[in-house]
Amino acid sequence: MKRMIFKTGTAALAALAIAEPALAQEAEAAAAEVVSGGTAYILNTLLFLIGGFLVMWMAAGFAMLEAGLVRSKNVSTQCLKNIGLYSIAGLMFWVIGYSIAYPGFDGPGLFGIADFPYAMQGVGEADTGTGYSVASDWFFQMVFCAATASIVSGTVAERVKIIPFFIFVMILTGVIYPVVVSWEWGGGYLDSVWGFSDFAGSTLVHSTGGWAALMGALIIGPRLGRFVGGKVNVFPGSNIPLATLGTFILWLGWFGFNGASQLAMGTIGDVSDVSKIFVNTNMAAAAGVVVAIILTQVRYGKADVTMALNGALAGLVAITAEPLAPSVGQAIIIGGIGGALPVIFVPILDKLKIDDVVGAIPVHLIAGIWGTLIVPWTGDATFVGQLVGVLMVGAFVCSASAIVWLILKAVMGVRPSEAEELGGLDKADIGVDAYPEFHLT
Amino acid sequence: MKRMIFKTGTAALAALAIAEPALAQEAEAAAAEVVSGGTAYILNTLLFLIGGFLVMWMAAGFAMLEAGLVRSKNVSTQCLKNIGLYSIAGLMFWVIGYSIAYPGFDGPGLFGIADFPYAMQGVGEADTGTGYSVASDWFFQMVFCAATASIVSGTVAERVKIIPFFIFVMILTGVIYPVVVSWEWGGGYLDSVWGFSDFAGSTLVHSTGGWAALMGALIIGPRLGRFVGGKVNVFPGSNIPLATLGTFILWLGWFGFNGASQLAMGTIGDVSDVSKIFVNTNMAAAAGVVVAIILTQVRYGKADVTMALNGALAGLVAITAEPLAPSVGQAIIIGGIGGALPVIFVPILDKLKIDDVVGAIPVHLIAGIWGTLIVPWTGDATFVGQLVGVLMVGAFVCSASAIVWLILKAVMGVRPSEAEELGGLDKADIGVDAYPEFHLT
Amino acid sequence: MKRMIFKTGTAALAALAIAEPALAQEAEAAAAEVVSGGTAYILNTLLFLIGGFLVMWMAAGFAMLEAGLVRSKNVSTQCLKNIGLYSIAGLMFWVIGYSIAYPGFDGPGLFGIADFPYAMQGVGEADTGTGYSVASDWFFQMVFCAATASIVSGTVAERVKIIPFFIFVMILTGVIYPVVVSWEWGGGYLDSVWGFSDFAGSTLVHSTGGWAALMGALIIGPRLGRFVGGKVNVFPGSNIPLATLGTFILWLGWFGFNGASQLAMGTIGDVSDVSKIFVNTNMAAAAGVVVAIILTQVRYGKADVTMALNGALAGLVAITAEPLAPSVGQAIIIGGIGGALPVIFVPILDKLKIDDVVGAIPVHLIAGIWGTLIVPWTGDATFVGQLVGVLMVGAFVCSASAIVWLILKAVMGVRPSEAEELGGLDKADIGVDAYPEFHLT
Repeated sequence: MKRMIFKTGTAALAALAIAEPALAQEAEAAAAEVVSGGTAYILNTLLFLIGGFLVMWMAAGFAMLEAGLVRSKNVSTQCLKNIGLYSIAGLMFWVIGYSIAYPGFDGPGLFGIADFPYAMQGVGEADTGTGYSVASDWFFQMVFCAATASIVSGTVAERVKIIPFFIFVMILTGVIYPVVVSWEWGGGYLDSVWGFSDFAGSTLVHSTGGWAALMGALIIGPRLGRFVGGKVNVFPGSNIPLATLGTFILWLGWFGFNGASQLAMGTIGDVSDVSKIFVNTNMAAAAGVVVAIILTQVRYGKADVTMALNGALAGLVAITAEPLAPSVGQAIIIGGIGGALPVIFVPILDKLKIDDVVGAIPVHLIAGIWGTLIVPWTGDATFVGQLVGVLMVGAFVCSASAIVWLILKAVMGVRPSEAEELGGLDKADIGVDAYPEFHLT
Repeated sequence: MKRMIFKTGTAALAALAIAEPALAQEAEAAAAEVVSGGTAYILNTLLFLIGGFLVMWMAAGFAMLEAGLVRSKNVSTQCLKNIGLYSIAGLMFWVIGYSIAYPGFDGPGLFGIADFPYAMQGVGEADTGTGYSVASDWFFQMVFCAATASIVSGTVAERVKIIPFFIFVMILTGVIYPVVVSWEWGGGYLDSVWGFSDFAGSTLVHSTGGWAALMGALIIGPRLGRFVGGKVNVFPGSNIPLATLGTFILWLGWFGFNGASQLAMGTIGDVSDVSKIFVNTNMAAAAGVVVAIILTQVRYGKADVTMALNGALAGLVAITAEPLAPSVGQAIIIGGIGGALPVIFVPILDKLKIDDVVGAIPVHLIAGIWGTLIVPWTGDATFVGQLVGVLMVGAFVCSASAIVWLILKAVMGVRPSEAEELGGLDKADIGVDAYPEFHLT
Repeated sequence: MKRMIFKTGTAALAALAIAEPALAQEAEAAAAEVVSGGTAYILNTLLFLIGGFLVMWMAAGFAMLEAGLVRSKNVSTQCLKNIGLYSIAGLMFWVIGYSIAYPGFDGPGLFGIADFPYAMQGVGEADTGTGYSVASDWFFQMVFCAATASIVSGTVAERVKIIPFFIFVMILTGVIYPVVVSWEWGGGYLDSVWGFSDFAGSTLVHSTGGWAALMGALIIGPRLGRFVGGKVNVFPGSNIPLATLGTFILWLGWFGFNGASQLAMGTIGDVSDVSKIFVNTNMAAAAGVVVAIILTQVRYGKADVTMALNGALAGLVAITAEPLAPSVGQAIIIGGIGGALPVIFVPILDKLKIDDVVGAIPVHLIAGIWGTLIVPWTGDATFVGQLVGVLMVGAFVCSASAIVWLILKAVMGVRPSEAEELGGLDKADIGVDAYPEFHLT
C-alpha cells in the first residue's frame, strides 16, 4: 500500500482545487472560505489545549532533568520544588499574572493591569470575538509562566531553602514574568515601539528565567565546596537516565511550546505553519545534540552525555524566537550553534565561579539571547530592535530579581546552615530521603 | 508580535459574529449551525482518542508512583502488576464489562447486559446515529476501567500474590466497576431516580477503586512489621523521583480524564467547556499541592514531598465529580480541601492499623467522597442524591469486593509466606530484582 | 448524568442523518460532502502532527527501556546513543532519506531519488494537491525512520563504540531504511508488483531494525562473559522500573504509530478507522502481556516482568502490519501469539549464542515477520506477496547492514578493548557515570 494516497473525497478535493493559491496571503483567505467560523474556533482552541498539555508536561521534564543532575541528598527537595513551583505559578498567574501580561495597554506600554483575578467564561459560553476559548488561551499562557520558574530552580538547586525559593517563584510568576510578557505579547512597548520579535519566547521565557537564575546564583552564592581556592570541583549528577528522560520530555513538550505559539490552526495556512514549526523545532534540537557530541568528543576525547542533553535544550531555546521563518537548513544552523553554547559557556561560568547546577544559564539565557539576535536573518525584525528587547528584558529582570533575592536574604535568609547543606536539603527541609534503601556515597 | 491576534480570515469572522450568542444555550445552537455534522463527528471522536491516550498514559503514572513508593524488594512485582492489570482490564472490559456498563436499561436500572463481547464497527463504517465513532468511545471508557484497578494495586502492594491479585482485577474490571458505571453513566438507577451527578468519576472511578482497595487492605491485613504493638513503623518509598514522575504523569492524564468527559467538542460551546475543565482541573491540583505543603510544613516543620504528591492527586480526585461548573476560585477551594485530606487521613488510617502503601484510600476514596458531596455547591445536583450515590456505590463495592477477596483468601490464599514477604515479592513471585546491581539496605 | 448523550445540535444531526450510509464506501463519500476541503486538510495534518509527536516520544521509550535493561556501567552510553541516534536520523532523513523513500518512481521501483535535501513549504503556504501539509507528513515519516534505528541500539548495547555505532545509524537512516520504504510506501516494487501490505511497518520498520540488529549482533559478537563454554550467563537489567516506563511510553507512542498511519482523518470513515486501530493496537498489546505472563508462570513458576514487557511490545509489533482489518478478537489472537514469541525465541537466541541485550530480535524481527505473514487472514494481501516482502527486505537489509558493519569493523573497529568493555562504556566512551553516588556491584 502506498502511504501517500489522498483520502478525502472528490467533492472536498474540488473545493480545495478552486482555492489553490498563488501566494501565501491568498491561501489564508481562500482557506478561510472553506473552513467555517465555528470549526475554526474549535480548531484554534484545540491547538491551545494540545499545546497546553504538552507544555504542562515540560514541568515533569524540568523535574526529572533536575532530579537527575543534583546530588542524591537533594533529590526529594528538587522534586518538591518543581511540583510546588508549577502549582504556585498557576495560582499566581490566575490571581494577578495574566492581568499584568495582557492589560490592554493605554499608556506607554510599560505597565498596565486588567481586571483580576482573571475570569474564565461560564459553562457553555464561548468568546466568539476572539475566535478561540479564552480559557484555552489562559491555560496555554499559564504553562509558559510555569516554565519560566522551572528554569530558575535548576540553577539555584542544592543550596536554597524551600520557603524563600517559593516566595521568589510567587513574585517571578505573578509580577516579573508578566511584566516582560506585557511589553511584547501583550502589545506593549517592545512590540509597538521597537518591533521586537520573539515568536515563542527565547527572550520572554528562557532569558527571563535565565536572568532570574543568574541573579539567584550570584546572590545566593555557589554550593559549599564547589570552588575551593582556584580549584573547580565538579559535582556529578546522581542519575543520568532521569536527566535523559527529562530532556526527552522537554523536547516533546517543545512541539507544544513552539507549535501552538502559532496561536491558530483554523486555516490551512496556519496548520501548515504549525507543521513547519514542528520540523524546524525538531531539527534545531537534533543539530544541537550532534554539535555538542562532536565538540565534546573533539575537545575532551569523550562524548559527554550531559552536554548532549544540554545541546538539545540549547538548540530548542535558540529556535524558539523564530521557529517558523527559517528554512530547515537555517534551523539546523541556528540550533547547531545553540548546541555549541553550553560546551563553551559551562567552563566560562566555572571560571567566573558562578555555580549553575544544571547548566540553565548557558542553555536558557545564552542560547535565548543567540536565538533572539539571529531572528533578523530569517524573520521580520531588526537587529537593533532585537538587541533593545534583550537588553531591556535583561535590565528589568536582573534588577527586579536581585531586589527580591536580596530582600529575601536580608529578611529570612535564603541558604540553609552549612551543616544542613552538607547533610542535604532532603534531611533538612523535607524529611524524606529520595533513595532511602540505596547505599550512597 | 502580539500573541492575541485573531488569525482566521474575515469571512469566517463574519459568520461567527452573526452567531454571537446572548445565552449559553443559544450559543450551542448557533455554533452547531456553523459546524457540519461530519466535522462534529470527527472532532467528537478526536476528543475521545486524545482523552483516551492521555488516560491510558495514567497507567504508567500509577506504575511509577507505586514503584517509587514501595520498598525496592517489591518494585519489579509492582511493575508487573501494573502492566498486567492494565492489560486484563482492557480484555475484561471488551469481553463483558462494557456490555454491563452500558446495557440499555429496561428494568429498574440496577443490572442489565447488552450483547457481548462488544463489537466495534467495521472498516470504513461510522456510527452516524451517535455522532462519534463507537470504537473511540469504547477506548475512552476502557481506560477509565483500567484506572479503577490501578487504584487497588497501590494500597495492597507488597503483600498480595500476583495470581489472586490478577483474579481480583478480572472481577473488578469485568463486573464490579461496570455495574457501578451502569447505574450512572449507563443511565441506570442513580441517574434516573436520584439525579446523581458525577462528571468524570470521583465516585464511579476513584471511590470504587478506593472501596475495593480498603476491603483488600482489611482482608489481606497489613504488611509484616508495619504495626507492631502500639507502634507504627513507616516504610519509606524507595525512589522519590519515580513517585514524582508518576504524579506528573497522572496530572497530565487527568486533562484527558476530566476534559474528554465532556464527551464532545463538535460545537464551540463544548470545546469552550473542555477548556474550562482543563483550567479547573489544573487549579484544583495546584491548590492541593500548596495546601499539602503548607499543612505539613506547619504541622511537622518540614514540607513532605510525598504529601505534596498526594495533595496534587487528591485535588484532582476532588474536582473530578464536577470540573466544569465551578468558577476557578471554587475549583481552588474544592481542590485545596482535597489536598488537605491525605495530610489528615493518612495518620488516621495508621491509627486504625489499615495499611495503605501509597495513600490511595485518602486520595481516591476520601477525596472522591468529598468531591462528590460538594457538587451541589456549584453544579446541578442535590446533596441527598449525591449522598445516596456515595453510599450505594460504597455498599455495593465493599460487599462485592469483600466477597471476592474472602473467596480468594479461602480458596488459594492471597498472601505469600512470611519468608517470601520478608525476602520481597520480586524474589518470590517474579524472579527478577528491580535493582540487581545496587547495594540495598 | 448519562455519559452517552449526543451533544451536537439538531441541525448538524439532521445533516448526518441524511448522510447515514448503508455501506462503508458510501459513508466516505457522504462524509466528504459534509466536511469541507479546508477542514479535511487541517484534520489530516493534525493527525500527522499528533501521531508524529507520539512516535517521537517513542525515542524516549527506547531510551528508558534500554537504560533499564543494560548494566549500570553502560547506562550513560545507552542514553547518549539514543538521543544521538534520534538526532542523526532526523538530519539524515532530511538530507537524503526522504528523497530515497519517496522518489516518485519511473523505473522498476527498486531505487530512485527525488530532489534533496527535502524542501518544506514556505511560511503560510499549503500543499492543497495532497490534502495535508507536506511538512507534517515529513515529520511523521521521519520519526518512523528514527524508530528503526532505536531497535538496533538495544540489541548491540554494551559492546559497540559510539562512533562506529553512529556511523551505522547514519547509513541505516539515510539509505537502508529509505530504500526499503520506497519499495512499499513509496509505491515501488513490493507495492506495485506484489501487492505487499504493511500498514504501519511490521516489516518496513520493525523487521528492518531487527535484521540490522541481528547482523550487528553476529558481526560484533556477544558481550564478554555472556557465553562461556556451554554456559549462558544472564546479565540482568539494572533498573526494572525504567524498563517498565520505557514500555509504557512505547505503548502510548504506538497509538500514533499505528493510528496515524491511517494517514487521514478528514472523513468520518477515516476517523472511525483510526479509532478502531487504537482499540486493536491496545488489545494486541494487552494480549501479548497476558500470554507472556501465563507462559512464564507456567514454564518457570514465576511471572517474568521483562518478558511481560517484551510481550507487550511483541504484541504491538505483530498488529502493526494490519491494525485495521482484524476484529478485536482477531487482534487479540495476533497480539497474543506475538507475546509468546519472545518467551520462545529468547532461549533459542541464547542457544545460538546470539547476544541480544534487550530482546529486540524476538520482539521486532520475529514478531514483525509473524504480523506480516498473518495479514492475509484479515486484510487485503496474499501469503506469497507477504512472504516475498519479508524475504526481500530481509535479504537486502541483512546484506547492506552486514557490509556496513564489516567495513566499520575493518576500518576503525567496532568494539572497545576488553578492559574498556569490562570497565563499562560509560568510563571509556562518555566519562560520565550514570549513578555516580550509588554503591554498585
